[in-house]
Amino acid sequence: MDYSRVFTQAIDRLHAEGRYRVFIDILRNKGMFPNARCFAGHNGPKPITVWCSNDYLAMGQHPKVIAAMEEALHDVGAGSGGTRNIGGNTHYHIDLEAELADLHGKEAALLFTSGYVSNDATLSTLAKVLPGCIVFSDELNHASMIAGIRNAGCEKRVWRHNDLEHLEELLAAEDAEAPKLIAFESVYSMDGDVAPIHAICDLADKYNALTYCDEVHAVGMYGPRGGGISDRDEAASRITIIEGTLGKAFGVMGGYIATDRTIIDVIRSYAPGFIFTTSLSPVLVAGALASVKHLKGSSEERDGQQAAAAMLKGLMAEAGLPVMPSVTHIVPLMVGDPVKAKRISDILLAEYGVYVQPINYPTVPRGTERLRFTPGPSHTVEMMQELVGALVEIWGRMELRQAA
Amino acid sequence: MDYSRVFTQAIDRLHAEGRYRVFIDILRNKGMFPNARCFAGHNGPKPITVWCSNDYLAMGQHPKVIAAMEEALHDVGAGSGGTRNIGGNTHYHIDLEAELADLHGKEAALLFTSGYVSNDATLSTLAKVLPGCIVFSDELNHASMIAGIRNAGCEKRVWRHNDLEHLEELLAAEDAEAPKLIAFESVYSMDGDVAPIHAICDLADKYNALTYCDEVHAVGMYGPRGGGISDRDEAASRITIIEGTLGKAFGVMGGYIATDRTIIDVIRSYAPGFIFTTSLSPVLVAGALASVKHLKGSSEERDGQQAAAAMLKGLMAEAGLPVMPSVTHIVPLMVGDPVKAKRISDILLAEYGVYVQPINYPTVPRGTERLRFTPGPSHTVEMMQELVGALVEIWGRMELRQAA
Repeated sequence: MDYSRVFTQAIDRLHAEGRYRVFIDILRNKGMFPNARCFAGHNGPKPITVWCSNDYLAMGQHPKVIAAMEEALHDVGAGSGGTRNIGGNTHYHIDLEAELADLHGKEAALLFTSGYVSNDATLSTLAKVLPGCIVFSDELNHASMIAGIRNAGCEKRVWRHNDLEHLEELLAAEDAEAPKLIAFESVYSMDGDVAPIHAICDLADKYNALTYCDEVHAVGMYGPRGGGISDRDEAASRITIIEGTLGKAFGVMGGYIATDRTIIDVIRSYAPGFIFTTSLSPVLVAGALASVKHLKGSSEERDGQQAAAAMLKGLMAEAGLPVMPSVTHIVPLMVGDPVKAKRISDILLAEYGVYVQPINYPTVPRGTERLRFTPGPSHTVEMMQELVGALVEIWGRMELRQAA
Repeated sequence: MDYSRVFTQAIDRLHAEGRYRVFIDILRNKGMFPNARCFAGHNGPKPITVWCSNDYLAMGQHPKVIAAMEEALHDVGAGSGGTRNIGGNTHYHIDLEAELADLHGKEAALLFTSGYVSNDATLSTLAKVLPGCIVFSDELNHASMIAGIRNAGCEKRVWRHNDLEHLEELLAAEDAEAPKLIAFESVYSMDGDVAPIHAICDLADKYNALTYCDEVHAVGMYGPRGGGISDRDEAASRITIIEGTLGKAFGVMGGYIATDRTIIDVIRSYAPGFIFTTSLSPVLVAGALASVKHLKGSSEERDGQQAAAAMLKGLMAEAGLPVMPSVTHIVPLMVGDPVKAKRISDILLAEYGVYVQPINYPTVPRGTERLRFTPGPSHTVEMMQELVGALVEIWGRMELRQAA
């Protein structure tokens, strides 16, 4: 058995497909997002504009967030020092869970070290606690949801993306008495489309299924208090479990679920991915708490983001660039080839100081490789005009396909 | 299907077994560890001494760690804003990975959001990349290693804890050409015993197996530079992959692996638990970097911890308390019953201001429930004498079994 040959071949396959990933080495400039410094391949740091951050509302530099983290750092120190059960349960964790439960109008919430872990741990545990459970999963669900469902070892039915007829067909085909869970996202982050939450909940009611909605690309950004699409659509009370993140619009790090008290108690007590891990640093929890509280009361950041997204989509469409039909803050530009997507990204960084990462397989299906822009409230009109000008130049230089 | 009945029954089972977990609500006092404040069930915060933290060396309050985190917070902000591939790869991450690779004498290292995730993601991916791989797992391996091996869907052989003859028997029974991976821990955190690393590596050499060693309860604490038991025993170069945490002795949060460059490239490129998650906050990474650097050059904390552990074990043994035979900094006291362990812990907290969590199933096997003390360099002789006095009083009051 020649191990190193097998490992080298695995890497060679990535190079051959043009999807070997190079991580761009950056530091963002607090107080000046989306401005940042780029290190790799340059003589000293080079100034860049970041166009692909998931710190969607620039809350990672908000003075309230920074102040809360600094205070916690000096009050209680760096890490929590333990799992939630063994020494790592701080007053900050309890306060943030109460705040998140309130945000979604649920009885309780539970923190995880990441959104990935919250999906994996919750879905895998839920389906194990419900013997014979069948999970109905949207085909575009995130890798972490797919991992959780696979790790549950339960039956799984995949419904075509946002296709209610297909979902109903699959639900109707199963034993009426079997436990059922419908798992979906509210905002699909690579296309920018939105799930029909009420219609999905109608089917859940009809077939007595639980519902699990991943709102990681929506919390903080939609609804009058930033509770996500379910807040905007007044559907939160109809969803069994809402899952969210503290690492995107809230600008910090960590994940959570909000649901009724008994389900929280079950996940808290049975999920290895929750039980056997050091809890979130109280510094992060304090920052997230400040961020959630702020965005509950302020719509300024949300409005700024929506205006920026509308403007960038408009400018790209006017310029004939193949911007994809997103109904959210996400602005994807189709390329359809991993090598070209990487080449465009490299030129933008090297010649224009624009940082946008190419998105390739396995994040999106092969043949749909794209650039994905996330304009936010701190991207200016001038930045957008410069960006679109650069893209038009590159599109011409590389003779790429324009919008139909 | 009555979902709420199933969930309620799951919780009822925990109560019936006496292992329903109540999280103690605390805040540690930075600069005064192990002193802390306890909230729940009291009128206002009550001062306590923490005896069960995994911030083993109190690095979570070290001035260098705090200063590094504060600087990063003000320089680059709260969160990373993205996955390592999409906007979340900062210069701090690259520096810390280089530092960790150096700590273990390996070519490269890779950060994860937690030690749990590093085990789960690495083991599950490794066994998938090596078709037909058989994992040989010590029976006391941590839940996160068990999760990774299960999630790989590969063949698994469980060897009796630290039993080299059994391990060899299992290795010899398999096809010589099959890929093999031996997975074990260096320090087993609930018993405090240590794996015979060189002897395991001898078997790995003989049977052409890779080795994976979880050093989370050893990094920072053993070896001249804090590289763990493999550093102390000069065995690091013989282990294929060393896994560690930033959330215990290093006092912050996060996990990592250190190994050769090709394997890092494989895990980085293929592991969903690494790819699809927001990277560690640069604030945490900066703190961990300061901590690892400090402990590479300073043995004061390690020496203080070993002295404290030796003293506490001695005091407990003299007092006739059933302290378990640990050869490390971990001091477990056997109780053997979940209800009694919880009761002792409750009395210690309520009457003595001593916080030590009862350890019950599934963290340890049923019937071996215990209290687990983790004395560190900031626990004083007076604190130890008070603790042992309290335990002796409670042992008498509850008529518990003394040491044989």
